[in-house]
Amino acid sequence: MTQPRHLHPDLLFPAAEPARSNARALYPLVKDLPIVSPHGHTDPAWFAQNGRFASPTALFLTPDHYVLRMLKSRGISYDALGIPRKDGQPVEADGRKAWQLFADNYHLFAGTPSKTWIDHSLHAVFGITEELSSATAGSIYDQIDRQLGTPALLPRTILDRFNVEVIATTEFALDPLTQHQAMEADGYIGRVRTTYRPDDVTDPSRAAIAENLQKFGELTGEDTATWAGLINAHRNRREYFCRFGAVATDHGVPTAMTADLPLVEKQALLDKILAGRLDAGDAELFRAQMMTEMALLSVEDGMVMQLHAGSRRNTDPLLMRERGTDLGADIPGPTDYVGGLRALLSRCGNEPNLRLIMFVLDETTYARELAPMAGYWPSLLIGPPWWFHDSPQGIRRYLDQVVESAGFYNLAGFNDDTRALLSVPARHDVWRREVCHFLGTWIAENRISKSSAEDIAIHLSYQAAKDAYKIA
Amino acid sequence: MTQPRHLHPDLLFPAAEPARSNARALYPLVKDLPIVSPHGHTDPAWFAQNGRFASPTALFLTPDHYVLRMLKSRGISYDALGIPRKDGQPVEADGRKAWQLFADNYHLFAGTPSKTWIDHSLHAVFGITEELSSATAGSIYDQIDRQLGTPALLPRTILDRFNVEVIATTEFALDPLTQHQAMEADGYIGRVRTTYRPDDVTDPSRAAIAENLQKFGELTGEDTATWAGLINAHRNRREYFCRFGAVATDHGVPTAMTADLPLVEKQALLDKILAGRLDAGDAELFRAQMMTEMALLSVEDGMVMQLHAGSRRNTDPLLMRERGTDLGADIPGPTDYVGGLRALLSRCGNEPNLRLIMFVLDETTYARELAPMAGYWPSLLIGPPWWFHDSPQGIRRYLDQVVESAGFYNLAGFNDDTRALLSVPARHDVWRREVCHFLGTWIAENRISKSSAEDIAIHLSYQAAKDAYKIA
Amino acid sequence: MTQPRHLHPDLLFPAAEPARSNARALYPLVKDLPIVSPHGHTDPAWFAQNGRFASPTALFLTPDHYVLRMLKSRGISYDALGIPRKDGQPVEADGRKAWQLFADNYHLFAGTPSKTWIDHSLHAVFGITEELSSATAGSIYDQIDRQLGTPALLPRTILDRFNVEVIATTEFALDPLTQHQAMEADGYIGRVRTTYRPDDVTDPSRAAIAENLQKFGELTGEDTATWAGLINAHRNRREYFCRFGAVATDHGVPTAMTADLPLVEKQALLDKILAGRLDAGDAELFRAQMMTEMALLSVEDGMVMQLHAGSRRNTDPLLMRERGTDLGADIPGPTDYVGGLRALLSRCGNEPNLRLIMFVLDETTYARELAPMAGYWPSLLIGPPWWFHDSPQGIRRYLDQVVESAGFYNLAGFNDDTRALLSVPARHDVWRREVCHFLGTWIAENRISKSSAEDIAIHLSYQAAKDAYKIA
Repeated sequence: MTQPRHLHPDLLFPAAEPARSNARALYPLVKDLPIVSPHGHTDPAWFAQNGRFASPTALFLTPDHYVLRMLKSRGISYDALGIPRKDGQPVEADGRKAWQLFADNYHLFAGTPSKTWIDHSLHAVFGITEELSSATAGSIYDQIDRQLGTPALLPRTILDRFNVEVIATTEFALDPLTQHQAMEADGYIGRVRTTYRPDDVTDPSRAAIAENLQKFGELTGEDTATWAGLINAHRNRREYFCRFGAVATDHGVPTAMTADLPLVEKQALLDKILAGRLDAGDAELFRAQMMTEMALLSVEDGMVMQLHAGSRRNTDPLLMRERGTDLGADIPGPTDYVGGLRALLSRCGNEPNLRLIMFVLDETTYARELAPMAGYWPSLLIGPPWWFHDSPQGIRRYLDQVVESAGFYNLAGFNDDTRALLSVPARHDVWRREVCHFLGTWIAENRISKSSAEDIAIHLSYQAAKDAYKIA
Repeated sequence: MTQPRHLHPDLLFPAAEPARSNARALYPLVKDLPIVSPHGHTDPAWFAQNGRFASPTALFLTPDHYVLRMLKSRGISYDALGIPRKDGQPVEADGRKAWQLFADNYHLFAGTPSKTWIDHSLHAVFGITEELSSATAGSIYDQIDRQLGTPALLPRTILDRFNVEVIATTEFALDPLTQHQAMEADGYIGRVRTTYRPDDVTDPSRAAIAENLQKFGELTGEDTATWAGLINAHRNRREYFCRFGAVATDHGVPTAMTADLPLVEKQALLDKILAGRLDAGDAELFRAQMMTEMALLSVEDGMVMQLHAGSRRNTDPLLMRERGTDLGADIPGPTDYVGGLRALLSRCGNEPNLRLIMFVLDETTYARELAPMAGYWPSLLIGPPWWFHDSPQGIRRYLDQVVESAGFYNLAGFNDDTRALLSVPARHDVWRREVCHFLGTWIAENRISKSSAEDIAIHLSYQAAKDAYKIA
Repeated sequence: MTQPRHLHPDLLFPAAEPARSNARALYPLVKDLPIVSPHGHTDPAWFAQNGRFASPTALFLTPDHYVLRMLKSRGISYDALGIPRKDGQPVEADGRKAWQLFADNYHLFAGTPSKTWIDHSLHAVFGITEELSSATAGSIYDQIDRQLGTPALLPRTILDRFNVEVIATTEFALDPLTQHQAMEADGYIGRVRTTYRPDDVTDPSRAAIAENLQKFGELTGEDTATWAGLINAHRNRREYFCRFGAVATDHGVPTAMTADLPLVEKQALLDKILAGRLDAGDAELFRAQMMTEMALLSVEDGMVMQLHAGSRRNTDPLLMRERGTDLGADIPGPTDYVGGLRALLSRCGNEPNLRLIMFVLDETTYARELAPMAGYWPSLLIGPPWWFHDSPQGIRRYLDQVVESAGFYNLAGFNDDTRALLSVPARHDVWRREVCHFLGTWIAENRISKSSAEDIAIHLSYQAAKDAYKIA
C-alpha cells in the first residue's frame, strides 16, 4: 500500500545533503511563527457569523477554481460537480456524489499544489492520512462531515488553531462592509481586516459602471460626475475602509498601464463613461489614470497599493454565459511593468509615503523588470508569486530570479491570496519550506552565512509581510 | 584516454543521492516499453521499400539540420559538407571527405543533444564506443558502412530492433501517399501511419497556393473555389489519409492565430487567393480561419489536431536562394497562444470530440499560458518540448513549468519529431531518463509517492502518447 | 559570531557530492589563468596616470550604480550618499559619513552579486575578512584608506596583481583618446585598449547629435553631411581607435533593430538629423541603418562588433533632472533579436570577416532566439550574461539555456563590463566557479567526460574571450 506522504517532516526540503540538513535546521525557526495574511479572498461572513461550514463538498470542491478546472480539463462536466447554472437548469445536488467524482479523479492532481494543500488540510485539520481515492471517498467524507459540526471547526477557532495574527479580506468600493461592521460590533477587531478593491468603480469595462459611479456618489455624498468629486469619493471611501482595519488597496487590471493626464482629459473620459460612449481604448485609459489617482491618494493616506496585473479574464465565453466568472477560464498574459508604470512612477515614484506592491503572472518580468525596478524605486516592492505560480516550483523560480537584483528586503514576504480558508496554513507552510530550501542550498554553496540565513528566513516568513503592509 | 560516455547506465540521472537511486529504480520500468512515435518526419519510402541506407554520411550528416547548422556556425561551408545547390554548382561529392570534416569538428557538439543522439546511435545500433574524432573518422565510417549492407540495418528491421509500435510520417494534403499505398499493398499495415499536414493548401504565403487549391479540387472532386467545396475537399482528403492509418492532422504556422469569420468574409478571402491578390494580413487571416475549420472537421471525424506554431522560417535569404528550406535558418519567436486560440476555442473548445495538441518554441508560455489553458480546456493537451527544446535541459524546463498547473495527465507524452531514423530510440530514451530524473527528485523531496511516480513514469513514457493520439 | 564567508574555497560549487568534488577538481585549472577583459568601463585615466585612488568611498560606493540603487530602494537618499546634484545644492561631502551609512545598511545586499564582489575585493585586495557592518565601518574604512597610499594599490600594480592580460575601456567616437595617447607615449602598450563606441554620432536621440556630426566631420576631415562622407568618417575614426589597441566596436541601443535602406533614404534621414527635424521613428531608423553600416565596416576592417540592446534608459525623470544618467534607473525590456537583426544579417551575416557579439537583458531570448541564431550564423556569438544577469543565478540560467543549441564554442567567454576596477577579478572568479559548477554537475550526470570538461572550462575562462575578440 502507498504510504501517505501528507505532512512528511522533510516535505520540499532539498533532495541531497548537506542542503537538506541546513533546511531542516532553519525550519523550526519559522514553522510556528504567526501567520500574517494581508491579501486574500476568504469570506468575511465566516468570521462574522462563525457558523458551521456546510459540507465537505462546499468546503473543498465547489469554491476552488483550481480543483474545478482540473476536473473539467479531463472531461468532467461542471454540471456533475454541482456548479450552478445561470439558466437554473438542474446540476448535481448531491454533494456526496460530487465528492465521489472528485475522489475518483484525485490522481489527476498528482504534482499540483492543489493536492499539496488538500492533503495538508486533510491531515492537519482533520487528522486524515489516507490517500483520497474512489475507495476512501465515502469514509473521508464522513470523517470531515462529522468534524464540521464540532467547535474545533468553527471559523474563528480555525484562525486560533492556525495562529493567524492578521487576515485580510477583499471588498469592492460599493460593499457596505456589513460583515466587518458586525465584527466591530462584536468587538472582534484587528484580526480580520478588509481591503479596498475599487474595481467596481474604476473599471469601465463593467456593464454597470455608470450606475456604480452614481451609487458611489450617493454613498459618499460626493458629485462623482466631476473628477474632483470622484477623487473625493475615493478619499472618503478609503477612510471608511480604514475604520475596518484596511491597510491596503488592491487593483485587478488586465495590464499594468498607468496614465497621468491633464484634468480636462480626465473629465472628458469620465463624461464618456457616464454617457455610456466609452470604447476599449478609453476604458484602458480611464483604468490607467485611476491607478495614478490611487497612488496619489496613497501618498496622502499611507494605504499600501497592490497591483494585480496581467490576467486575461473569462476566456471561455460559453462558461461565462452558462455559469459566470472565476471558474478557471482566466489565463495569464505577458505584462509590461516598466512601460506600464512609467506615468505613475514619474508622478510619485519617489514619494516616501507611497508603497506599491507589484504582483505578476508573467514570470519573464521577475529578473528582467520587477527585480531591477524594486531594487531602484523606494516605493516598489515585489509581491509573492501569485496564482498559478504560488507553488513549490513557482516559488523556486521566483526566488531564483528576484533575489539577486532586488535583495531580500524588497520582497513583500508571502500572502496566500486564497478563497479556501483551510489552505491558508498549507500555503504559508509551502512558502516557509521553500524559503528554507532556498537558503539551505545557499548555505551549502557557501553563499550566505547561517546567521544571515536565519534572519532572512524569519523575515520572509513573518516580518516582511507586516512591514510591507504597514501592520504594526 | 577518454572513457567513452556513450550509454552510461546513469546517463542524465540526478547527480546526487538519494534522487539518483530513485531514478535508477524507476528506469527499468520504462526503459523497454514499446516506442510510440505519433509525430515525426521520417521518410515513408524507407519503410515501403525497406532498402539499404546509402552511406554513413547520408545517414547521419546531410539530412540532419541540427548537425549542419552547428558546423556552418563555426565557418564550415555547406559546399564542403555536400549540401546540394539549386544552381547545380558542384559541392563535395565524396561522402567520406564530408564525414572526415564532420569528425574533425565533432568537439563542437559537446553539450548538445545532437551529440547525445549520435553517440547513442553509434553505440546502440553499430556497437561503436570510440569517440568520433579526426583520428577515428575513417574507421568509424567503415564500421558503419559495412553494417549498412546487412539485414540488421534495413529500415523495417530497425523498427523491430527499436520496438517501435507505431511511427507516424507527415505528408501534405496533395501527396498521393504512394509509399503508404505500397505498404498497404504489402500488408505492412498499422505500424507506419501518415499524418494529414495540409499546409500546402492552407498557407497562402506559398507561391503555388492558387495552383495547389485547384489541384486539391481535382484530387477530391470538389469545387475548391467555393468555401463549402474547399471544406468538403478537406473532409474528403482527411478520410483518405485515415485509410492509411492517419490519426492526426498537423499544422505548421508562424503564429497561433485563429479566426471565426462569417461565410461571406471567408469566401472573399478565398476569392482573393485564387485571384492572386492577397496581402500578408489576408494570408494570416486565411490561415487563422483554416485552423478553426480544421478544428470543426476534427469535431466531426475525431482526428487529433496538432498545432506547431512559432517558427520564423528561412531567416537567411542567401541560404534560401542557394539551397532551399530546412537547413538550419528557422528561428523561433514569441507566440501568443491565449489570444491566438481565442476564436477557435470560443467556437468549439468545449466539444468532447475535439483534441488539440499545442507545441511551442516559446518556453515563456509553458507556465504562463499553456499549462493554465490545458488545465482548463477539455480539448487541449500540451505537446512535448519541441525542436530546440527536445533536450535534457529543455525537458527539465518543460516539466518544471507545466506540471504544477496542468498536472501530468494533460501532457501528450513524448514524440520525437525527427527526420533521422536512428535518433528515434535515443530521443525517447532521453525523455524517459529525464522523466525518471524529475520524478526521482520529487520522491526524494517527499512530494510524490513511489507508487504514483511509477504510474506516472510509465504513463508519460508510453500510454500518454497512445491516449493523446487516440491510438488503440 | 558570524564566520566570514569571504573567499570560501568552495564558494558557489554544487551543494552536493559528487558534483562538488568535480567542480573542485576543475577549478585549479582555471583559477589562475590570466584575465582577459575585452569589454568594460574602467577609466583609462587610472592606467595612464597610475595615481592613488581617492578614498574608500570613491572606490566602492559613489561610482557603483548597483550599490547606490539598492540603498535608494530602501529609502536612503542620494544626497546622503554624496551623489552630486546638477543644481549645485550641497550633498554629503564627508566620505566617511557616507561610508558609515553604506555599512549600516550592508545587510540589504545579502544575496546580491554586489556583496559577493565587494567581499571578494575586501578580502583579496585588502586582506579584510570581517563582515562590513555598523560596528566595523570605521576600522574597515581606515584599513582601506591606509593601503590606498601604498604602491600595491596603484592601478597598474593592480593589473599586475590580478594577472590582467588585456583590459578594454570604452570611448565615444569624438573622444580624443588623450589617456590612451599618454599610455602610448609612455610605452604602456597593448594591455589597456580602447573600444570604438560611436553612440555619440549614431544615436539621434541625443540632443547634441547635429553638433556632434559636425565635430565628427572636422575631426576626420570628411563631409559628414553626405552619407558617403559620414561612412568615411567612421572608417577613418575606427582606424584611429585601432592605433590604440581597439579590437572591437560597441553599440548601446534600445532595440536590436537594423535596417538596410537605399542610399536616397539614408541621405534623407541624415538631412533630417542635420536640420533638427527628426521624429522618434526616424531616430530608430537611423540607428538601425547605422548598425548595418557598422557591420559592413567590420567586414572591411575586421573589428569585432558588439551589440548591447534592450535597456530602457533613464526611467526616473526626477533622477535625470537632478543628477543625470547611470545611477540605477535603467531597466531592461523585451528584445526581438531575430526580427531586429534580419536586415543586417540578410546583408552580410554570411561574410567570413564579420563577427557580431550579441548581449541581451532579456533572458527569454537565450534559448528561443540567441542560441538558435548563434548555432546557425557564422558571424554571431553570444556574449556573456550582462548587467543584472552577471550573477551566480544569472550565469546558471544562461548556461542552462544557451549551451544545448549553441554549443560551447559559439559563446564569447566572459567579460566583466565593470566600472569598478576592484571587481574585475571577483567577477571573473564568479564566472569561473559557475563554469566549474555547471560542468561538475554534467560530469556527475555522465553527460560529458572529465577531459572534455577540462578543455571547456579552460576555453570558457580564457581562450574563448581571446578568440571572440581576435586578440592574438
